Parts: sequence; structure tokens; C-alpha cells
Amino acid sequence: MHHAVLGTGMVGKAIATKLRSLGHDVTMGSRTPDNAAAVAWAAEHGGRAATFAQAAAAADVVWNCTNGAGSLDALSMAGAENLAGKVLLDLANPLDFSQGFPPVLSVQGRDSLGEQIQRAFPQARVVKTLNTMNYLLMVDPGRLPEPTDVFVSGDDGAAKATVVAILQSFGWAAPVDLGDLSTARGTEAWLPLWVRLYGALGTPDFNLKLVRAG
Amino acid sequence: MHHAVLGTGMVGKAIATKLRSLGHDVTMGSRTPDNAAAVAWAAEHGGRAATFAQAAAAADVVWNCTNGAGSLDALSMAGAENLAGKVLLDLANPLDFSQGFPPVLSVQGRDSLGEQIQRAFPQARVVKTLNTMNYLLMVDPGRLPEPTDVFVSGDDGAAKATVVAILQSFGWAAPVDLGDLSTARGTEAWLPLWVRLYGALGTPDFNLKLVRAG
Repeated sequence: MHHAVLGTGMVGKAIATKLRSLGHDVTMGSRTPDNAAAVAWAAEHGGRAATFAQAAAAADVVWNCTNGAGSLDALSMAGAENLAGKVLLDLANPLDFSQGFPPVLSVQGRDSLGEQIQRAFPQARVVKTLNTMNYLLMVDPGRLPEPTDVFVSGDDGAAKATVVAILQSFGWAAPVDLGDLSTARGTEAWLPLWVRLYGALGTPDFNLKLVRAG
Repeated sequence: MHHAVLGTGMVGKAIATKLRSLGHDVTMGSRTPDNAAAVAWAAEHGGRAATFAQAAAAADVVWNCTNGAGSLDALSMAGAENLAGKVLLDLANPLDFSQGFPPVLSVQGRDSLGEQIQRAFPQARVVKTLNTMNYLLMVDPGRLPEPTDVFVSGDDGAAKATVVAILQSFGWAAPVDLGDLSTARGTEAWLPLWVRLYGALGTPDFNLKLVRAG
């Protein structure tokens, strides 16, 4: 399976490297074809570096690993025609750091970034996932001493099944299907608590485990 | 210790009953001195029923168990003079059900209901806690098969210590101190995810357990 990883930050590198380790073809996409981080990643891991549009055009599965504030812009550069029909994993959060730390959500209430992306690219098959944790944990759930939880939200059942299978290959035994894409409002709203937990615990290396009555 | 429990709903009844079982004096406060639910609760559990103001005046510790949409109004009826110097546990969430289920937050971003209450009653010692879970769990953490987490947020360290001791008497072994009252923005923002988890899991009888790298 050919994956386009859009974004060259820590999330993009972690996802792209994990996908390569699992034997997938990976193109890391960025604004320019010669982005230094993408070219260096590609040379080290046997992947490719390309523009957002080239990466998306070549891929079966597209990962939005861009900063939430720039995601709609980056996906526009990828191009609606290159996203049509594709599974689009949205890992971004709409965080506004304009007044410093902690950030606040720039989209909330009766909307979410995941839904904004779906509305902007109606032919993409958007699945919100992995946005509830640090990048190290996304690709290595076993780094924590107990199994914890990851969520999927999306309107396309087949796309969610594809994403669940990918998550399982990453080590997530039982992703929790929250329902349609509007449930991304819930996982994005986790961020204001996540940043406070980061502050109180002194580490981003944590996750939540759901415990229910037996 | 004399507790005023403001609110006669499921949260208020659960808290008041637990406090009575631990041997505390409890007055359940409501808008009127003859509220049927409060009078019935008092008769059954050996507590008292009174107005918000009478209950708060008699108490060392005040619990805001009213609906979030009405909390500021109820606390105004309790009276700033009756809240001054008191530990005020705020269990409410600013949920707006005006467009049905799921609700959205009516206060968010750079503010919280906990902070609104603190600003309105600057001499009260507000501690936000227990607002992240179903009422059954608040007073019976052992109903879940593993220990889970509860949070405290507040500006007054001594008040938080009092609350932590109360929570421990309820069975919460290690409440997580998130920091000052602005961290209530985090726990209130958990609600949009909580309601989605309620939908996906089909039960409100769950909680989160923080798992961190060892």
C-alpha cells in the first residue's frame, strides 16, 4: 500500500518511519519538492520526498500530519482531485497558540477540524484518529506499561475499517469506534485536558485507558 | 464537619448520602425550604433540608451539585456572605442542551464555569472536582474493576488539601492535582468526549485511567 504522509514535523516523521518499517511505500509530502527534512527522511528510510500534490496523487492512503492551523491550506495544495476516493487520516488538532501556552481550540462546539476537512474535500474519506496523544505513542503503544485507548471517527465505514487495520498493525489492539465524523468534536476537545495533564504530570508520555463497569 | 449540598438531583443525592454514610452532618439546599426531594432525602438519611442560603450559612464545606446552567444563579441565592471563606466544591459542567444531545459547552476556551464561580464569589475557596464522571462513580470508585482517576483544580492549596482528603474518604486513593483553577478548563472540556464515549460504550459507567510511561 502506498502512503502519502503530509507534514515533515515530528508526527509526520514518526508515522512515515513506522509505515516504512512495516514495508509500505511512503512519500513524505511538503510545500516544496526539496524540503530538507523530507529529503533527509527519505534518504535515511528509503522513502520519497515530494510536494503535497505529488505525494497525494501517488498514494492509496493519505495522512494529514500537518499543523492543525495549516491543515486546510496544506490539503488544498495537495488538491481535491488527488484526495478524491482516498482514505484520509486526520491526525491534526485545531490548536490556537496565539496567546501562548496552553493553547485553546480554534474550532469547537458544533464543529471540528475533521468535519471542516471533510466539508472542504467531500470526496475524501476522512477518518479522525491518533490526535489524542503524543507522536511517540502513536506508533508505539507498547511504550506504556498497560494497553491504552485510541479512537476513530468517520462517516465511511470501509475507510474506518482500513484505518483500524493500520492501527492494529501499529500495535493498537482494539481501536474504539466512536461513530460518525462529528465525534471528532469529542477527541479534539480532549486536547484542553491533555495539555493540562501534560503540565501536571510533567511528561507528554501518557495516554488514557477507558475502564468500564464489568 | 457540616456539609451543605446544593442541588437535589442525582448528583446532590449521591453526594449527600455518601457524606451521611461517613458520619457528616449534611444539609441539602434548594430554592425553597420545602423542596419535596430534599425533604424526602433528609427524612430517609437523617439530614436536613433548607434553602440554599440556610444550607450554606450552616456549613463548613459547600458542594455545588446544581445544574451548570443554573449554578451561578443558585450560588447567588446561597449568598456571597454565606460562601465567604468556605471550601466550595464545584461539580457542575456548563452544558448547553438547547439543541439536544449531545450538548456543547456554554463556557470554554480561555474561561470555565469554575472560574466564573470563583470570580462571582471571590471569597469562596473554589475547587473543581468530580465533574468528569457519572454520579454513581463519584461516590463509589470501586464499582469499576481498576482504579481510575479524579482531578482537582483550585487556587487555594489548603482548600484543595481538604477536598483531596474528602475524596480519599470516598475511596479515591490518589486524586490528581492539575494546578490552579484555570485547569478546570481542561476537565470541563472532557465533557464533549465523555458524551461521545457514553454513546459509543452504551453506558455512563466508565472512567479514564491515566497510564504513563514507567
